[in-house]
Amino acid sequence: MQSSKELYASFKEITQKAADLQFASAVLGWDQETYMPPKGFASRGRQLATLASQAHEMVTSDNYGKLLHELAAKDDLGDAEKNNVRLSLEDYEKNRKLSSTFVEELTQQTSNSYNAWIQARRENKYSLYAPELAKMIALKRRQADLYGFEKHPYDALLDEYEKGATVAMLDPVFDMVKAQLPPLLASIKDAQQVDDSFFNKHYPKQEQWDFSIEVLKKMGYDFEAGRQDYAEHPFTTSFSSEDVRVTTRVDENNFASMLWSSIHEGGHALYEQGLPVDEYGMPLGTAASLGIHESQSRLWENCVGRGQGFWKYFYPKLQGRFPQQLDDVGLEAFYKGMNRVEPSLVRTEADEVTYHFHVMIRYEIEKKLIEGSLSADGLNEVWNEHYKQYLGVSATDDKKGVLQDVHWSHGSFGYFPTYSLGSFYAAQFFEQAGKDMQALSREIERGEFGHLLSWLREKVHVHGRRYTSEELCKRLTGRGLDFSSFMNYIKAKYTLVYGLK
Amino acid sequence: MQSSKELYASFKEITQKAADLQFASAVLGWDQETYMPPKGFASRGRQLATLASQAHEMVTSDNYGKLLHELAAKDDLGDAEKNNVRLSLEDYEKNRKLSSTFVEELTQQTSNSYNAWIQARRENKYSLYAPELAKMIALKRRQADLYGFEKHPYDALLDEYEKGATVAMLDPVFDMVKAQLPPLLASIKDAQQVDDSFFNKHYPKQEQWDFSIEVLKKMGYDFEAGRQDYAEHPFTTSFSSEDVRVTTRVDENNFASMLWSSIHEGGHALYEQGLPVDEYGMPLGTAASLGIHESQSRLWENCVGRGQGFWKYFYPKLQGRFPQQLDDVGLEAFYKGMNRVEPSLVRTEADEVTYHFHVMIRYEIEKKLIEGSLSADGLNEVWNEHYKQYLGVSATDDKKGVLQDVHWSHGSFGYFPTYSLGSFYAAQFFEQAGKDMQALSREIERGEFGHLLSWLREKVHVHGRRYTSEELCKRLTGRGLDFSSFMNYIKAKYTLVYGLK
Repeated sequence: MQSSKELYASFKEITQKAADLQFASAVLGWDQETYMPPKGFASRGRQLATLASQAHEMVTSDNYGKLLHELAAKDDLGDAEKNNVRLSLEDYEKNRKLSSTFVEELTQQTSNSYNAWIQARRENKYSLYAPELAKMIALKRRQADLYGFEKHPYDALLDEYEKGATVAMLDPVFDMVKAQLPPLLASIKDAQQVDDSFFNKHYPKQEQWDFSIEVLKKMGYDFEAGRQDYAEHPFTTSFSSEDVRVTTRVDENNFASMLWSSIHEGGHALYEQGLPVDEYGMPLGTAASLGIHESQSRLWENCVGRGQGFWKYFYPKLQGRFPQQLDDVGLEAFYKGMNRVEPSLVRTEADEVTYHFHVMIRYEIEKKLIEGSLSADGLNEVWNEHYKQYLGVSATDDKKGVLQDVHWSHGSFGYFPTYSLGSFYAAQFFEQAGKDMQALSREIERGEFGHLLSWLREKVHVHGRRYTSEELCKRLTGRGLDFSSFMNYIKAKYTLVYGLK
Repeated sequence: MQSSKELYASFKEITQKAADLQFASAVLGWDQETYMPPKGFASRGRQLATLASQAHEMVTSDNYGKLLHELAAKDDLGDAEKNNVRLSLEDYEKNRKLSSTFVEELTQQTSNSYNAWIQARRENKYSLYAPELAKMIALKRRQADLYGFEKHPYDALLDEYEKGATVAMLDPVFDMVKAQLPPLLASIKDAQQVDDSFFNKHYPKQEQWDFSIEVLKKMGYDFEAGRQDYAEHPFTTSFSSEDVRVTTRVDENNFASMLWSSIHEGGHALYEQGLPVDEYGMPLGTAASLGIHESQSRLWENCVGRGQGFWKYFYPKLQGRFPQQLDDVGLEAFYKGMNRVEPSLVRTEADEVTYHFHVMIRYEIEKKLIEGSLSADGLNEVWNEHYKQYLGVSATDDKKGVLQDVHWSHGSFGYFPTYSLGSFYAAQFFEQAGKDMQALSREIERGEFGHLLSWLREKVHVHGRRYTSEELCKRLTGRGLDFSSFMNYIKAKYTLVYGLK
């Protein structure tokens, strides 16, 4: 019989080799979005597919399962080892529920749905997408059945992105969104709108880029273990915690387009750079969940990067770079402008209040699509009704309506709620950070983020997937997700910005 | 029993999946040399190792061998299919001669030797490298035994880079180098040296870059299926014939450093872009040999890019970009300067005549190291003696001597000769091109390279690995490698440049 040590070494070898292939995929994906010449697409597609299937084969093999079961029965493993085995076994059991035929079908449908989505966007016509989306929904319903669930089929899909998240947990959260945000939004509407037109002056590309690099460096992003490049849709990707890259885009006529996106991706990247390098490719070297990932990006983007203290330090530097554009805009006006609230049609352009209506609408629709009480047919109209009802805006076309997000074409049902969870966790974590570090706000005003980063490293980053989001939140703040932290945070902000009573 | 069609489909699937992993490796390699942040090295190393071992496993499996043997026995395969099977079976038989333990040992030693080489270069001290080089040589001698050979162990290694090349074939070639080049070199030495000091004026980076892009486009390099980036050591890499990338470096104080290197890599890239896309990953979609690859780069770099006709077209454009630097340098002076001959210590900086002494010296040394009549111990002195004897120059230190090339640290014994073979094939092919296309020289003078490229596509590129270098050469020129083409080519050039009789 093999010793625990030998078994663990075999398990680790396979897990890390699968990770090598996944990280290689990530490199190919990064290249595809940044530097790949147009004709490279065809071969890149098949290369990515092969890498994915090879990695999948490794961690779903009978042999891997046998190793995991044997290891799970051992009682002489260390604590980290135990956790890696426990989490890998969970993944394994879940992966094994899908047959390889089903996985292939899903991969094929993803490609079909995505192409239909592209086509439908090009022609601004939802009906071109609907049949493929319907097929995708049918597959996701089957996937939920294959995974199994206790109460709601959507729970099975949510679990992929946010372990432990369920309809039973999310319904109350979005009920609070529906109950507590509208009054705030109403009082903002009644107040004098703030001006943000100065963002639309001309801000030369290179200066914007240089400023974003300055900010990322100050945040603590390690450029020896990462880099920033241009991409059409900003994202963060990781090839190990020692090579974590961010991407951004620049609009010379909209200053707001780049900077906060850079800070947002920087927040994601700090998390990835903070994962323990000696747990490369293992669950303890992997981020906890999408919600926790988003908590890191939102904390930096919003709680820090759209806060007054941050700009006390950075605004003079920004004015130094753009004197013509900003010399006649005071710090307060700048702060107000960046926090302007206005209901709109497009999620990615939304402010911190209305953003959660966008997510809530998607959540409601997804839930119904997966339980089967709503179909893809005519979904554009359902979408528009929701927007009218909750945000009071009407989509002029499908492209700005139901076709705006890529997620469903990828089969990512259950992904959207993590965006809101991330914001809510962010507010709760940032509130706790302020309690744990009395000097935090003064440090931020001096452009010092070292303590905040160390705190996040210690409280969140180093743990990898050891804890679920809720467990992490409880360890960190003494309680599970608490929507009131977020409400307190935005109320305080908008009281200041809009002079609310 | 499975039909030939079914068997071939299975064979093709495995072969192309292995290629997917190899091309993925190439993407990771490209990234490593262009954009990867410094801390990415550790994880990149293991990712590359995993990709290589996975690909190797696929094409050395018993199952793959069985498929190949069954297919080889079929008589109803098409011509392309037959060739793909034949060549894959050859590869398979060869690969299977090395045990996985041996391959691992070689991989490990490559890493050790490479690190020792880096260290030795840093300290400019060959003795730090010698013990690891000795171990590498021992392994390569074992590898030659494992592969098997008829006459000389070095033949077994040569075959990896240049199928069919042997000591019996190369000895006469390098004998001609030794016999025919020295008299030419002597008469050049007796003539008035040409001036090339204008290359060392200041040439701004961006203008050099833009000019190289202009030249690559004119050559026919497809930027929709490739791109150029900066790298410390210029190289070409391919991820399919629709994504073939070149890299270059710029020295603002040495114009010659970039341009011809760009043209050289462009020649390699045109070959890769010309490989049949529907034979992706198959032998018929792969380059014939290193020698033939080098024939393409040298043909463009030297026969075309250092020719008078080429510059009749491009020189006015170059002067337009660098008027201050070049307005007082005439076309003839420019042409002479770029073809200056001068014995030197470093291979990569050598001119078209002395270059082959550098290669010949390495060939002689490699042959002896592999047959065991020379050892790594004191090799720096042997090296210097050879340079003194053949080129009349003495290395001042190891870095400019035996430590200048990375190849041996990688275990690439048998690689160097392909550099000379490439030049000789290039001269022979270009001579033939002139015969086949009467208007060629006039076209080149007008900056028109379309016919030349089509000719190379038809004669060389589309065939992939179907023919060996010698077969290709015979099909193309009616005879095997003929050193006299090269001699005629350089005699004509240097008669012009140095006014020889």
